[in-house]
Amino acid sequence: MAGFQVRTDLALEARESMAEAKKKLHGIQVEEYEIEEDHIHVTRVLIETKNAAKSMGKPIGTYITIEAPEILEPDEDYHREISECISKELLSMLPKKEEGLSVLVVGLGNREVTADALGPRVLDNLMITRHIMRTYGKAAYENKCVNEISSIEPGVMAKTGMETAEIVKGVVEETQPDVVVVIDALAARSTKRLNRTIQISNAGIQPGSGVGNHRNALTEESLGRTVIAIGVPTVVDAATIVVDAMERVLKDQNKPEEWKDMERIHKAVTQLNSMYMTGKDVDSMIKKVSYTLSEALNMALI
Amino acid sequence: MAGFQVRTDLALEARESMAEAKKKLHGIQVEEYEIEEDHIHVTRVLIETKNAAKSMGKPIGTYITIEAPEILEPDEDYHREISECISKELLSMLPKKEEGLSVLVVGLGNREVTADALGPRVLDNLMITRHIMRTYGKAAYENKCVNEISSIEPGVMAKTGMETAEIVKGVVEETQPDVVVVIDALAARSTKRLNRTIQISNAGIQPGSGVGNHRNALTEESLGRTVIAIGVPTVVDAATIVVDAMERVLKDQNKPEEWKDMERIHKAVTQLNSMYMTGKDVDSMIKKVSYTLSEALNMALI
Amino acid sequence: MAGFQVRTDLALEARESMAEAKKKLHGIQVEEYEIEEDHIHVTRVLIETKNAAKSMGKPIGTYITIEAPEILEPDEDYHREISECISKELLSMLPKKEEGLSVLVVGLGNREVTADALGPRVLDNLMITRHIMRTYGKAAYENKCVNEISSIEPGVMAKTGMETAEIVKGVVEETQPDVVVVIDALAARSTKRLNRTIQISNAGIQPGSGVGNHRNALTEESLGRTVIAIGVPTVVDAATIVVDAMERVLKDQNKPEEWKDMERIHKAVTQLNSMYMTGKDVDSMIKKVSYTLSEALNMALI
Amino acid sequence: MAGFQVRTDLALEARESMAEAKKKLHGIQVEEYEIEEDHIHVTRVLIETKNAAKSMGKPIGTYITIEAPEILEPDEDYHREISECISKELLSMLPKKEEGLSVLVVGLGNREVTADALGPRVLDNLMITRHIMRTYGKAAYENKCVNEISSIEPGVMAKTGMETAEIVKGVVEETQPDVVVVIDALAARSTKRLNRTIQISNAGIQPGSGVGNHRNALTEESLGRTVIAIGVPTVVDAATIVVDAMERVLKDQNKPEEWKDMERIHKAVTQLNSMYMTGKDVDSMIKKVSYTLSEALNMALI
Repeated sequence: MAGFQVRTDLALEARESMAEAKKKLHGIQVEEYEIEEDHIHVTRVLIETKNAAKSMGKPIGTYITIEAPEILEPDEDYHREISECISKELLSMLPKKEEGLSVLVVGLGNREVTADALGPRVLDNLMITRHIMRTYGKAAYENKCVNEISSIEPGVMAKTGMETAEIVKGVVEETQPDVVVVIDALAARSTKRLNRTIQISNAGIQPGSGVGNHRNALTEESLGRTVIAIGVPTVVDAATIVVDAMERVLKDQNKPEEWKDMERIHKAVTQLNSMYMTGKDVDSMIKKVSYTLSEALNMALI
Repeated sequence: MAGFQVRTDLALEARESMAEAKKKLHGIQVEEYEIEEDHIHVTRVLIETKNAAKSMGKPIGTYITIEAPEILEPDEDYHREISECISKELLSMLPKKEEGLSVLVVGLGNREVTADALGPRVLDNLMITRHIMRTYGKAAYENKCVNEISSIEPGVMAKTGMETAEIVKGVVEETQPDVVVVIDALAARSTKRLNRTIQISNAGIQPGSGVGNHRNALTEESLGRTVIAIGVPTVVDAATIVVDAMERVLKDQNKPEEWKDMERIHKAVTQLNSMYMTGKDVDSMIKKVSYTLSEALNMALI
Repeated sequence: MAGFQVRTDLALEARESMAEAKKKLHGIQVEEYEIEEDHIHVTRVLIETKNAAKSMGKPIGTYITIEAPEILEPDEDYHREISECISKELLSMLPKKEEGLSVLVVGLGNREVTADALGPRVLDNLMITRHIMRTYGKAAYENKCVNEISSIEPGVMAKTGMETAEIVKGVVEETQPDVVVVIDALAARSTKRLNRTIQISNAGIQPGSGVGNHRNALTEESLGRTVIAIGVPTVVDAATIVVDAMERVLKDQNKPEEWKDMERIHKAVTQLNSMYMTGKDVDSMIKKVSYTLSEALNMALI
Repeated sequence: MAGFQVRTDLALEARESMAEAKKKLHGIQVEEYEIEEDHIHVTRVLIETKNAAKSMGKPIGTYITIEAPEILEPDEDYHREISECISKELLSMLPKKEEGLSVLVVGLGNREVTADALGPRVLDNLMITRHIMRTYGKAAYENKCVNEISSIEPGVMAKTGMETAEIVKGVVEETQPDVVVVIDALAARSTKRLNRTIQISNAGIQPGSGVGNHRNALTEESLGRTVIAIGVPTVVDAATIVVDAMERVLKDQNKPEEWKDMERIHKAVTQLNSMYMTGKDVDSMIKKVSYTLSEALNMALI
């Protein structure tokens, strides 16, 4: 399928897409577990070598994927189970520091575009402690060891004129957090993953991946501290959907090689390059998912 | 292409889709004109008979389509030309009343979903006069003959539990306007029409058409007064895009009849039924278009 | 203090203001109870006669006031106790109907003005069932007896050109609910009640009372069904604050009668007539209080 | 009136408050002019010495105040005159640079609190060029000399856990603009100045002044480049209103000295410390004023 870049931000999907070619890939470890009664499925993909990174199209690092198809159902207790699972996995990636960590949570995306508002909206329900700790010390929290939580919504380049990475770097330099947690809306390849899959990774966020263009490298290398990215696919890239459908048509006709030559299709797909696909109920999806993520962060960080 | 409903709210597109089959359709009149230097193209489609309505898949009525590809460019004066053109065409559909009309403007859609927020956002910049006229009379406007403008944002059924039509009917019964103007975001078949095509129609809004499910019949018949619908396509139905691409593939292979039998594709498309496609810059598009429409309404109604 | 109308929407405060004059007022009954461990104080004021109504400046009816000073603290369990208390008192006012009630919840106020956004924001977290019940019947809720909940945000007159009462009446006529619950932000006389006092009343909402001008009579008489108003004071009327402070100054000087003649003060206060006073953290107050009310309504109605 | 800090952010008011004591203050220059037909009044206050700064309670610098009482009227052309006047005065403070300036516009305040949303909302209509200039160069603007405009909405400490100054400093360090323009909502002493007075100053913004606590020193000294603050009073400090009214009462009684001893009043005023007063139509005021400021900035900077 050379010539088209199939866009997916999910390591899980990247792996699936190669599954048929090579059953076991060198330099990649995969663990899975199930929280049975709640139907939560957790997959841990470790990309350990440069070669593995190259064949996966994802940088070296750990990618935890939590699939929770029932996240969108009304049962409140279930949401708590998902939040607890996300919280636990997030904690497994955080460095330990006896006197408490200072954590900057970055909400990427555009609050004005519903499907891209996940990051900003997670911040809305986050417990922020840094300014209180700085003013009153631990006494404000009964001398418990509380992390210093701060947050920033950097906005999108069309509105700020700056790369997200410039803003985040500046704030990190000035406030010196131990850890940067970045929340973002992702693009999935399949509609079936939308809004019910949470990916946590310590590989940071790379320029060019993902849905929008609001991101630039936010990685341990560029920021000089642990960077944990939490993402949820909220859109499907429009071109990807069409390419995938094409493939299925031609596979059914046993002519998978043929479509590469079709000029008109190539053009149609190129035209879709700045388009994305999302569900009509995207507002209530984003509301539920962002609330679950806020809760998970509050559990893990406070 | 039986078996699939190709979704389009634009009479223009409906006509195009049949253009090849029959060059001239009985019971349909089409006029076109150009505002040359501003590159505004106006098409008037009159659907005059039941047969014509049936073959177009649109009810009897007048459909004016204003294509203004430059609406999204920064030139302010151009926007004014488009607003003036919309205003003029809207006026041509309004009934005349010497002592001034009372007009209820309804902003359909969901403010929380960017692509569906057109209706509510047009209301944000509308000049509202009814309450002032009722309190101070024409003296408030230097005794000029001013129309009584009111507006309502009925919201969507998932949030109100009521059909939009129930709310609008109730308000119409209570406040007895002469005319109801309904603003809505539409679905187009082609990405090239998005956010730059304005359709004005006196056929009202029919249940089942359009992007969302927030609409029920809002017609002259159901409301008992002139109903003018103003719509702008802001999304493309996801299933439509895939179906159209499929067709092109198979046409290139000279096997257009073949794809109807492909079970898998049918399923894929069905899966896309509640999905829509939109541009990544949908927020700035909606902002510009809603402002242009507000201006046009203010020109026509005040 | 003739000549000035001291603005308060709280029956509790109206009563306090006369407490010194008459210890026990004929035609008024007052009951109080305490939910001790949670520091919730409930007062029930019954205004039973026209005379009592006149001297209280409030129409005949039941006024329940729930004072919960800790509503703004972070403890989540406490919020639940308050929600449960509100829910219980609300239920005590609702009519009983074996096959389930149909309830229209009206969120008064202006979403764009933070202190006036309480009504609209309560709707945001409300469970809406009417459209589901109408489509799927009780089967959608496991054949439990579920009330049909609908909601409307009528907006403010400056934006709609219509009286709130016109919109609500129209919707009530069209959808015929059994009960109308109206949520609104109130004006208190004292800053110490802000955002921590909930008033529930079956006397409806009268024109002229309250903070804004977005209300007209919404009463059992005007709407033809039970009307329950739930209000929380979010602002203090600016003129009231100044008048109250004046009084205290002059009382300290033992010249309470003197200030009535001061022309300049009268003018100053008149100038404040369209002003209100609120806290700098009004956004987080409204967020917490609206969430507590939504929860209470969901408990009582579902 | 020692013991109480009368809060005003307007240099004009600070001067007025001393006007009676000293007719002409050493180290202060005042110029005024009128744009007659448009009823715009411009006052330029130069605070030149430390002594003058101390007696004014404002740092050394130039303070331009534009009074435009008709800013809130509907006449569009008038708005343009005000925008042009603001633009001209702003230009007079900007440094000159042949190859174009790079300007960071900071929108202070809290978007969620209407009266404090001025800064963020000015950014909404600002033309942003930096990212385009960086990608395409001057060719993007027909080789005209265009300034590089960027913007940031730092949010408030309760939500970010960081001082505004930390965020702005970080971003300034990283992106190195020539000039920082800071937009903020101010507190006035008198309701008559609300939303119709624009203050432009090169003295930056000092901690502790103003309405909220979202500010820390943003000055030429702290940021290392020209800092221009543009402010509009949108609220009146509640304590100030009461103190002022008190004074008038006692002045009328010829006992101005007496009130300082009144314990109860002191307490009442202290209680009002986190309160502010604003008009009921604050949303439409902020909308109009923020639009006028955006226009002025676009005129001056593009």
